[in-house]
Order: sequence, then C-alpha cells, then structure tokens
Amino acid sequence: MGWGDLGAFGEPSKETPNLDQMASEGMLFLDFYTANPLCSPSRAALLTGRLPVRNGFYTTNAHARNAYTPQDIVGGIPDSELLLPELLKKAGYVNKIIGKWHLGHRPQFHPLKHGFDEWFGSPNCHFGPYDNKELPNIPVYRDWEMIGRYYEDFRIDLKTGEANLTQIYLQEALDFISKQQVSQQPFFLYWAIDATHAPVYASKQFLGTSQRGLYGDAVREIDDSVGKILKHLQKLGISENTFVFFTSDNGAALISAPKQGGSNGPFLCGKETTFEGGMREPAIAWWPGHIPAGGVSHQLGNVMDLFTTSLSLAGLQPPSDRQIDGIDLLPAILQGKLIDRPIFYYRGNEMMAVRVGIYKAHYWTWSNSWEEYSKGINFCPGQNVSGVTTHTKEEHTTLPLLFHLGRDPGEKYPLSFASDEYQRALEWISGVVQQHKATMLPGVPQLNVCDKAVMNWSPPGCEKLGKCLKPPKSDPKKCVWPH
Amino acid sequence: MGWGDLGAFGEPSKETPNLDQMASEGMLFLDFYTANPLCSPSRAALLTGRLPVRNGFYTTNAHARNAYTPQDIVGGIPDSELLLPELLKKAGYVNKIIGKWHLGHRPQFHPLKHGFDEWFGSPNCHFGPYDNKELPNIPVYRDWEMIGRYYEDFRIDLKTGEANLTQIYLQEALDFISKQQVSQQPFFLYWAIDATHAPVYASKQFLGTSQRGLYGDAVREIDDSVGKILKHLQKLGISENTFVFFTSDNGAALISAPKQGGSNGPFLCGKETTFEGGMREPAIAWWPGHIPAGGVSHQLGNVMDLFTTSLSLAGLQPPSDRQIDGIDLLPAILQGKLIDRPIFYYRGNEMMAVRVGIYKAHYWTWSNSWEEYSKGINFCPGQNVSGVTTHTKEEHTTLPLLFHLGRDPGEKYPLSFASDEYQRALEWISGVVQQHKATMLPGVPQLNVCDKAVMNWSPPGCEKLGKCLKPPKSDPKKCVWPH
Repeated sequence: MGWGDLGAFGEPSKETPNLDQMASEGMLFLDFYTANPLCSPSRAALLTGRLPVRNGFYTTNAHARNAYTPQDIVGGIPDSELLLPELLKKAGYVNKIIGKWHLGHRPQFHPLKHGFDEWFGSPNCHFGPYDNKELPNIPVYRDWEMIGRYYEDFRIDLKTGEANLTQIYLQEALDFISKQQVSQQPFFLYWAIDATHAPVYASKQFLGTSQRGLYGDAVREIDDSVGKILKHLQKLGISENTFVFFTSDNGAALISAPKQGGSNGPFLCGKETTFEGGMREPAIAWWPGHIPAGGVSHQLGNVMDLFTTSLSLAGLQPPSDRQIDGIDLLPAILQGKLIDRPIFYYRGNEMMAVRVGIYKAHYWTWSNSWEEYSKGINFCPGQNVSGVTTHTKEEHTTLPLLFHLGRDPGEKYPLSFASDEYQRALEWISGVVQQHKATMLPGVPQLNVCDKAVMNWSPPGCEKLGKCLKPPKSDPKKCVWPH
Repeated sequence: MGWGDLGAFGEPSKETPNLDQMASEGMLFLDFYTANPLCSPSRAALLTGRLPVRNGFYTTNAHARNAYTPQDIVGGIPDSELLLPELLKKAGYVNKIIGKWHLGHRPQFHPLKHGFDEWFGSPNCHFGPYDNKELPNIPVYRDWEMIGRYYEDFRIDLKTGEANLTQIYLQEALDFISKQQVSQQPFFLYWAIDATHAPVYASKQFLGTSQRGLYGDAVREIDDSVGKILKHLQKLGISENTFVFFTSDNGAALISAPKQGGSNGPFLCGKETTFEGGMREPAIAWWPGHIPAGGVSHQLGNVMDLFTTSLSLAGLQPPSDRQIDGIDLLPAILQGKLIDRPIFYYRGNEMMAVRVGIYKAHYWTWSNSWEEYSKGINFCPGQNVSGVTTHTKEEHTTLPLLFHLGRDPGEKYPLSFASDEYQRALEWISGVVQQHKATMLPGVPQLNVCDKAVMNWSPPGCEKLGKCLKPPKSDPKKCVWPH
C-alpha cells in the first residue's frame, strides 16, 4: 500500500472510512517509513527491529539490488536473530501471525520456530505458478502444517480478482482476539494481509464497489476489516488495553498500476525505489484512552520502531547484545515529543539515501535499468525528474543530491550545491552517515542463493492432503535480482 | 492554491489546522473545479455563474490560449453580465469584495458599478513593475478611489516575501462582518485574498513558520485568517445563519515551485493546463447546524455553482434570459444528493476536455509550447506522460483520450480505444458534448486587445494622493498570450 492510498492521506476517492476514523480517534504519522522498498526485507526488519543489512535480508549478488524471498530462495531469518514474538513470550504474550510470513519458507524458518504460537497464512507471496504442475503452488499453513494451496484450495480468480482470503484472515483475527480475551492472556497479533499485492484480490461483496477499480476494492475490504477488528476490541472491552498500529511494508507498486497498483500521493516513484514513493507509508497508531484523538505526528518513524515500541509496551527492554535500529515511539505517541533520528534507504547493502530532519540526501540514484525499462517495467510511470529518476546507477557519494522534503516533498528540485543551505545540511547529514557507517556490521546475506529444490514441493502436512510433490535435484545458483 | 495544499487534502506537512477543522465541521468537496486554469476567467465565472467563453473572459487572438486581465488589458466584465452581488442586492444584501477583483480595471468595470457596495483591494495581480517609473504600480482601492499603490504604500518585500496584506484583508473582513451584524443586514463577503499568488507573501509573524517555505507561510496565514473569520461568526452568534465556502481560482502554479508554487497532490500538471492539476481545487462548505459535520461529497462542483447556490440561499432565482452554467449545490450539501452534470475544461474558446461522471475526455492536449518550455517555463515539472503532456497542440477530436479518474486520478493511463469501456464512455460523453456545443453562444471576447494607455496611470483618487501618472498615447494592439 502507498502513502496516498487512504482518505486520511489524500486519496481523492476517500474510500477508507474505517481507517480514517482510526486516524481521527488515534494518531496519524505523516513521516513514517518502511525499512526497505521491498516486502521481505521490510517485514524482517519489522520483526527484528534491525535494518535488513544487519539481519541478513539483502543480497550481494549485484550492487544495490532489491531482493526478497521467492519460492526458490535458500535463505531466511537466521536463528541468531531475535524476533519480537520470541521476546514478548517472556512477558507471557501469546503471539499469532495471520497472513504472509515472508521470512523464509524452509523448515528452519517456520514462524512457530521463531516465537509465534499460531499461524494462519502462507510463507510466500500468492504468486503463481497457478497450476501446480511444473512448479508447486504456495501452501497455506495452519500452525505447523499446510492445509492447502493457493489456486487449488484457496482460490484467487485471476480473471475477476475474486478471493475471500481477507475475510478468512479477518475471522482468524477476531477468533484469536476473542480467545485471548477469554484466557486473559496478553497477545500480539501480526495481521499481515496481502490483498493489495499483485495479483490483487477482494471478496465478492467488495468487488466492483470502489471507484478505484480492483485495487480499490482490495483497499476497501482491508479498511472494512480493520474497522471490524477495532470494533471487536471495543466490544470485548479491551480497546483501552490494546495498542494497534496500521502501516505497510513498501510503497505502492506503480509497476502494477492502474489496475493492480496504488497511490503514493504527491511522492516520487514507488515500490523498488528509494524515493519517497517507495518507502514512505501511511501509518496510524490507535489506543483509546491513551493516545489523544486526532493527533498528528511528524516524528520520523520506521516499521522497525514497532519492534522497540511493542517491547516497551510489554515492559521489556530491547536486546543489548546487538545493534537495534528501531526506537521507542511512545514518547512521540503519548507525549508528542519529536525524537531526532535518521531514516536510511537501502538497496541491498548499499545505502542509497538518508533522511535527517527535513533533508534527504541521495548518495546513489536509480529507478531501474534501461533494459528493464525498455521492457515496460517502470517504477516511476509518468514521472521523470532529470538527474534524479536515473536509469543508470548514478553515484553522488562525494556530492549527494539534497532535497528539502518540506518545500519539495516530490523530490523534484535538488538544492544548489553552491548554496549555504546545501553546505549546512550536508555537514549535518555527513556526521550522521559517518556514525552509521562506522558501526555497521552487515549480517550474512540470506538472499543470494536460489535453488528450485527448496520450493514448496512437500511442506509439512502435505502427505495427509495427498499434496506432496517431488522436488528436483538440488542445483543452487546465484539468485537473479534485476532491480 | 492547489488541491493538495491543505492537510485535509493530503499535504504531507499538514499545516492547515483551521481549514482542516472547517472541513471536519463542514463538508469536503473532492471533485470541485475552477471554470478555467487561470485566475481572471475563473473569477468572472464565479461571479456570473457562466463559463468564461460565455461571459467574454477569453481570447481569440490565438487558438486555445489562456488569457487574463493584466494592466494593459482593454476589456473587462461587460455591463450585460449580471453579477452575483447585483442580484443579491435585490434581496437586501450588502456586498463587499476584499482583495483582488480582476474583472477589468478601467472605470466601467469598477466592482461598485457591478453590484458591490464596498471594496478594499486591487483591480489586478500584485505584479510589478515595482518601481512606478516606466509603468504604474497597481493601485489599492477603498471603495471608489485608490488609497495607495503596491510596493509604495502597500509594501511587499520581494526579497523576504514580507507583506502584511493578508492581515489587512482579515481585519477588513472582521470589521465588515461586525458592521453587518450590528445593522442586521444580510451580507455577501467575497474574500478574494492573493497571498499564494506569485510574488508570494506572508506577514512577519508567519514568515519562516512553515516547513514548506514561503509558499507554506502564505498558506498558513490564510489558514489562520479563515479560522479567525469562522470564530468571529461564531462569537457574533451568526454562524448558523452564514454559509461559508472556501476554494481557489486555479490549480497551484508549478511554474513557481518550489519556493512560490504549491501542490496539486496526486494530479497531473498545474495552473495554465486543463489537466486535473490545473483545475481541480480544494473546496470546503461550512454552515454549522445545517451541513452535517465531517461530510464528504463527490458531487462534481464548479466555482460557477457558488453563484447559483448563493442565489438559492438568498431565495432568488438565477436569471432566466441567459445560459447559466452553475448549479444549485444545496441538494448535494444538505441532502447528500449527487447531481449529474459535466465539467468543461476550456482554454480560450476551445473546449480542451470534459469530465462526465468518473470519465474525462481530452479533445486537445497541450501543456505548453516547446519554445516556452525551452525557456524553462514548465507547467508539469517532473511529470511527463507520453502523448498526454504534449508540447505541441495535439488534436484528439475524432478519438479523444479517455481517462477513468477513479482508477487513474493522475491521468497517466488513457483507456484503450479498442475497449468496450472506451466505446461506452465515449458514447455517453459525446452526447453531453454535442448538447453543450449546440447551445454554446460565445460572448464578445474581452481579452483580445491590450493598450499601455489603459494602465493604472491615474486611477480615481490619484490626484488627492499626488499619485497620478501621465498615460502614453493610446496604441491598441492584440494582446500576446503565449500559453
């Protein structure tokens, strides 16, 4: 989902009454970011509180390339990483993930081996192959075992976009919350829905209801579901004891627009890029009785902060034996404080850009290659900022491109190198970057090796369903990451 | 001001708390338009309820060119046009204009000759010459006579952007409202401020207060002033008897960005163009006790509707002897009805585009000429949609470019000519356009002739101030309109 996809963030059709109400009852974050312009690394960062370059969710196969966890990925979340649910367990929390895990699908990466108590959902994106012949369809798990596969047992009609998955995910969420309320146990629910990810889908009751087409139908169903979850918390009388945060894992995928792609509002480009459209996200915090209604925060925030903030809410400290990038947002949320902290924009292990205060410095610019672009793959459709949305990787490490995101949120007007403002801002930013680089210890890259043999041929439980497939011989290769 | 300039419309700095509150207490219009992508014609349309091509505010000097009322314009609002204040007078209203008139500055066009009872402001934009030597500075009037000139008696510091004009306009508004409340007379106040028009200005107390730079300072001052006007109405106990509407006369001038130009949110291009960025506007209706708080309307609206709606509020009928383009919005505002009506996008006397329902058809596309573009004049900075933002005038009258503004508010993806959707939409639109053209009677064009002799050399009252200048010999010529 993109920054501009919600009514509260200026989507012109304004079709998200529940999320807009969530914002009016809670706090809107206008300067909130993902940890990466792509899904897997961003989700790994959310659950570890650490940049993908630290937790291993990156590639070194090529310079400054985006990578994720497709079916043939060999890597996944390392055992050495401490995930939010692992830590929350110590405070008696019951943890559930509903939806897309995306931190690796081989047995050692299973979410229940990393702190979650329950899981309903799938390890990968709901991509094809769609026929389960040459290649396996993605499995859907309940807890330890698969209970079916996409396109077979969990249908997504690629022609109409119909799928009732969000309804299933919603019911799972409501049931889990009810159960925890009965058992009086504190809980962490990671509701990781994926209806706005191509192939975009919506339930029959939402199909055709949006002015925005199928993508809008999916947004409306998510909006409706969030409304139902919040109402459920209120009905159970636990809303004042439950912290809820809504955000997304990367900017809207403009490559899929207009039918399957969303809106990044006034920002430049989208998913896969380190421009604002790729990483700035809608974000809403909700906690009636604690967060002042209708609040607005300009705190620079990041999905990694949800790790540290959640620990703080549970009365826990983040691990002290490693670098944690997420900060505790509670002072920003409860006392309106502004905490000084940078935002880093990475592709692979290359720091492409950094935001410090209102300034953003690009050390490298790249939208995508001419080769990909000439095939019609465009991360910045209709946008073209000379010297900024470059189709070759342009290095600016000695003289970074600087933008003032207040005057120029669309990253269209680099500051003049000769200006005093440039000099002052660069000095400030350079100090921050120097410190960041001096303490950077990259983790072992998890997204370098691909092997068809590791695909979801025979997930646990497949034998009960007669859904085991025979894997081919192992043939590990360097993954190809074109972007 | 552009659609994206208010927090309620998704401006990322969200610095307009008063206008946002006005929206939350009133009704937000998301599909509201100006009558023209330029100021004078749009304002003439607002006050006459008629398209500029009918009321004469257009040029035929060149094809599809924007025109307005600079100092050397010979034309202005024809006597035959009936202006809103002329009509409201019949219902006992006292009418005041504060700020920029822009419907012609020669004596016969004076606002007090066209229905207004009071005026504080100027006839033209607050452009230079800035020195009052070769050419006269623009006069500022109180009612019939000038009381000074810009840059002499009413300072605008071009270096710092400091000017206290919005504060003067605010005080004028508050005083006028108080006076009418005492005399118990109904009133019409046209608060036509211009701080966001280049050269952009703000009072000292607002300078440097916005994250958005000088333009943002100007927006913040307008926002603050609107808040004060609304509070004044409430304090006087007349808010439930006063209808207030906030909107602008054209999209943000991206040519002046980033320092002096605003935001058109997710829309394409800006002022001077017939893309959404040129004509879609922020719009808020406020009338406590009548308009349901927090309402949102997708009614296609136009500044011309304020003419008809205001008459309706005053219990008057619009003139029946001429074509009126504005509709009565009260059913949309008070009963949430959606009235079927088209939006026409003109340049000069050429209908460039039309919106019918969610569809928009471009019959001509043009941003600006290569010649102007090569001089650095760019109405679509950072945007480039192949075949859409054309630098030559492209005719599409036989096969218009069609956009679905719900799925594609940014006008990036023309519908395929071969699709059923295109055929169905075109049939619908063609009927509307045919009917429009069949009944179109263009007025006498007012913006064709320019003459230095008609400039503000010796406005009424100049002799008392010793500020009369000697006009040159009359030398009428065709005005040059490059855009």
